[in-house]
Order: sequence, then C-alpha cells, then structure tokens
Amino acid sequence: MNEFELIERFFTHIHHAAGVVLGVGDDGAVLDVPVGEQLVVVMDTQVAGRHFPLDTSPFDIGWRALATNLSDLAAMGATPRWFTLALTLPEADEAWLSGFAEGLSVLAAQAGVSLVGGDTTRGPLTITIQAEGTVPAGQALRRSGARPGDGIYVSGYPGDAAAGLALHQGRLARATGSDSLLERFFRPEPRLALGLALRGKASACIDVSDGLLQDLGHILAASGVGAVLDLEALPVSAALAAITGEDARSWLLSGGDDYELCFTAPDAVVLPDTGLPLTRIGTVQASAGLYDSAGNTLEVAGYQHFGGAG
Amino acid sequence: MNEFELIERFFTHIHHAAGVVLGVGDDGAVLDVPVGEQLVVVMDTQVAGRHFPLDTSPFDIGWRALATNLSDLAAMGATPRWFTLALTLPEADEAWLSGFAEGLSVLAAQAGVSLVGGDTTRGPLTITIQAEGTVPAGQALRRSGARPGDGIYVSGYPGDAAAGLALHQGRLARATGSDSLLERFFRPEPRLALGLALRGKASACIDVSDGLLQDLGHILAASGVGAVLDLEALPVSAALAAITGEDARSWLLSGGDDYELCFTAPDAVVLPDTGLPLTRIGTVQASAGLYDSAGNTLEVAGYQHFGGAG
Repeated sequence: MNEFELIERFFTHIHHAAGVVLGVGDDGAVLDVPVGEQLVVVMDTQVAGRHFPLDTSPFDIGWRALATNLSDLAAMGATPRWFTLALTLPEADEAWLSGFAEGLSVLAAQAGVSLVGGDTTRGPLTITIQAEGTVPAGQALRRSGARPGDGIYVSGYPGDAAAGLALHQGRLARATGSDSLLERFFRPEPRLALGLALRGKASACIDVSDGLLQDLGHILAASGVGAVLDLEALPVSAALAAITGEDARSWLLSGGDDYELCFTAPDAVVLPDTGLPLTRIGTVQASAGLYDSAGNTLEVAGYQHFGGAG
Repeated sequence: MNEFELIERFFTHIHHAAGVVLGVGDDGAVLDVPVGEQLVVVMDTQVAGRHFPLDTSPFDIGWRALATNLSDLAAMGATPRWFTLALTLPEADEAWLSGFAEGLSVLAAQAGVSLVGGDTTRGPLTITIQAEGTVPAGQALRRSGARPGDGIYVSGYPGDAAAGLALHQGRLARATGSDSLLERFFRPEPRLALGLALRGKASACIDVSDGLLQDLGHILAASGVGAVLDLEALPVSAALAAITGEDARSWLLSGGDDYELCFTAPDAVVLPDTGLPLTRIGTVQASAGLYDSAGNTLEVAGYQHFGGAG
C-alpha cells in the first residue's frame, strides 16, 4: 500500500463540518471561515513512547492525538471545525491504521470536525495534528485576562489521568474505580461545551495538559498576577481517593494529560452548567507568586521560568 | 533549556504578516482572514535521513521545511500568511536551533509569513509545518481543471534538485554549475509569485515535489484526462546538461524536490511573466494515459495508482 492508497482508504471519509470547499486530495484544502468569526489554530505533537506508552491501542492513539488539539480549541473558546494530520509511521500496517483512523473518526464525529488534509511519511511513530476552530471576533479566551480578586476554577478531577497512566504501567495496584482512571488517560474528553460556555464569562483560560499548577502558572505569568490556592478545596475523584499514598497529591497538583479546563472569573459571573463539576480552588492576587492558604510558597515545576513574563 | 525557554528564544520573533490577533504563547493563535477570501491550509512533514540527508545544515533544514509548504500554497494560488511548526528534536542543541530558526526566519521574511504557534517535543528529528494562505473566494488553483487541448507547462528546470542531492551524496562527480544544483536541493525557492499570477489563467496546477511525471499524473487523474508529452521540449538546465549519463533523463522526469509548478492552461491564455522560464511540454488529451509524441506509453511510478480516480 503506498502513501496515496493509504490516504484514500483511511483518511478521506472523516467529514463532519461545513465550510470545506476542497478537502483531502489536492495540494491544500480550501475552507470558508464564517463571516464575523476569527480563525483559531492549535497544534500538538504526540511521540510514541514519550506522550503515550508504546503498547497504547491504535484507537486510543488516534483519539488522544485529536483530543489534545480539541482541548486547546476548548481552552480558546473556539468552535472546532477542521484539522490536518501529519502521520509518521514505521510501516503501513493495515490493522494499526484501521484502528488509528477509527479512533480519530469516532471523536471527529462527536466533535463535528473534518479532516481536510495532511501528510503521511515513513519514520518513527509521531503524530502531529493541527486543528482549526473559529470564534466570534474578539471573543477568544486567552491566558492573559486574569485580574486580582477573580476566582480560580478547574473542571472535573485533575490527577486522574496521571493515576491512570501509573496503573497501566503497573506502578500502582488496581482499586475500585481504576477503569475510570485508565479511561481518563487513554480517552480524554476535550471540554468543548465548557469552553464555548465560558466565552464572555472567564477572564482567562487554559487546558490542563502539563499539570494543574504549571498550567495555572502560565495564566498567572501571562496575566502578570499571582494567586492563593486552597489546597483543601481541590477536587478529588472517588477513584483517586481510593488510592492511598502521597502519589495521589502529586498527581492532583502536577499530573499532566487531564485536559480539564482551568480558568479564572470574577465573582459576579454566573458559571455555566454543562454537567461538569466546576470547583473554585483559589483566588487571583495582584502580587506575583503562588501560595497556599497558610502563605507557604507552592513550588511549581516550570512556573518560575515564566516569573518575569507578562 | 526547557521547552518554554526554547520557544521564547528562537520562535517568537518570526512575524511578517498582518492579521495576527494573537500569536505564539497561548493555547492557540487567533487570526483574521480577510473578508471575501477563503482559507487555504497545507501541511508537510520532513523526517531527518528520509527527506533530507542527516548532514544537512540546520539553516537548510529550516528553509526547506518552510519552503515545501509555501510551494503547496503557490500551487493553490494562495497568498501565504501564517504557519505553525511542530518540531520534534532529540535534544535542545542551541547551535542547531539557532541555525534552524535562522533558515526559517530568512525565508519567512522573504515570503511575508508569520510563525503563530506550534509544539516542540523530544524525539527523532521530524519537522511538520502547517501553513495557511488565503485566496479570493473561488479562485484557488486545483488539480482537477485540466481540459483536452490545454497546454501543459512547467516552470524552471525540473531534475536539478535530484542531481544536487546526488552530488551531495557523492553519487555524482562535480562539474560546471554543480553549486547551483546543490542549491536547488537545499534551498528550493517556492514559486509564490508564479502561483499568484496563474490565478484565473491556469486550468490546473500542482507543485513538483515527487517528480514531474508523477505530479503531472495527479493533475491528469484528478481532471479525468490523459496527455501527450513532448520529451524533446523538456527544459534542461545548463548545469544538468553538463552531466552526462542516463541519470540526467531520469532526474528530469522523475526526480523529486524541485518545487517548480506544473500547470495546464488553454492556448488562448497569455502566460504571466514573473521572470521564470515557462516551458510548454505537452498537451492534454481526452483519453486516459500518458504518451510521448511517438505514441509510446510513458511509465510513471505512482501514476497508475490514480488511473481509476477522477
């Protein structure tokens, strides 16, 4: 099977969005951006053995590669529309490709996006997706709008995905709810409905891909503010609570791959109800730094690198 | 140097296009597509050791990675505007990154495009760029518009890049003009001015990345037509002519990496003068297949896979 047959067979039928004037099969795709909307573009790469275990199922690899991009669109408050796929593969294995395309396809249908182009090459397994969404002009959510006094919120239960990965790798014994933790790592749900509902409400927003504290740190740096976190308020899932030991706390604060949204909003804002739990975990402060309620500095890997920004 | 410092240092200053509402540094970029224009998106991946020799200079790797994408935009008749970069690197080597960013930057300035986002990850050296351009609505060049009787044209001198690669790899002895052949492989010039000038003139267009015959084959398949080629008319550069042996002919017909444009146009069309030589190399026919002037079938690797399409 050569590159062209491979594209034809697996990647020309993922089509759920309007505005595709010309899709897969030419030198480029031609797309209609709705009048009055701005284009939002995001890009994410997944390297086998680094971003996901080598024994991850092809379905889950496809799902995650798209989900991480849709999560970035959610964090921008964008309506997802189209994506392009750069797939570097050691060999064109039909069973693998079929599973990978199915994972992509199921999530693409759920999110209403179309695959409009890309490139397949031979090499070590690496997947780059670039996704495009749109927002009404001026309404994109940014990292830079947090203001002193704003509440800090997180959706869902951060830390679950890191625990799921630890379970998969045998670093953790299974307990009640372990299947849900595995699912959180291998089939993350981009918070698209929440992202849309936060337009005009959140003052800043980011998705939690590198760990709650680190990603919150990006908001604080971009906004030129600090924060006090209420560690007791952090939401812990029943499944994570079932796991004892100090790993649980570390995952909650620093585990990546959750793809929840962390955002800030003034107290006057009525938060949207999209069925997802939203927990207030702290308050934005004018002075720089990240502290717990007792005034202790919270050390955040990565955060200090941005201390001087914004 | 971590991922964030790396991005900040090398990749936040490549900015030459209008319409960038929000660039590098958030979850996504926010872009303004001009009113009345359609978005054109292209994507191309380069794997070290596969798409370029392992000893290619970092400057040239950066240049080529952007050039191949700009070439796709040229083939669509699009004005290049923005791009995103997914860079997978074995290690964050400062000298390498500096050279790579410089190659990107020089070509980006020349083409007037902005780097608006991307992702840097650790792994085997792989570069994926997704570039965005715009065209006035309905004016994108496609592969599918070739009609019987149209002339078939190619810009510049196909085959030079393949000869340049052979020179670099020591498969070929140097001769007069060898430096220009090397330059054609390592610093391809995307034919952007020609692509723009062909809007409303060319009936079909593609860039020559996989070899002249194979890429022409894509036009013929997408258009549901065939062609007769005048092999004697094929343009041969002085540098390629200086090389004897049958390799020269094979490179001319099947060598990749030229990034010239191959297009079709009715005889009534006055071809644009952009300073590039444009050579008529054949005529589109209603009946399928690709023949030389004597009626012999031209065997084209890849072409037969598309015989049933269109």
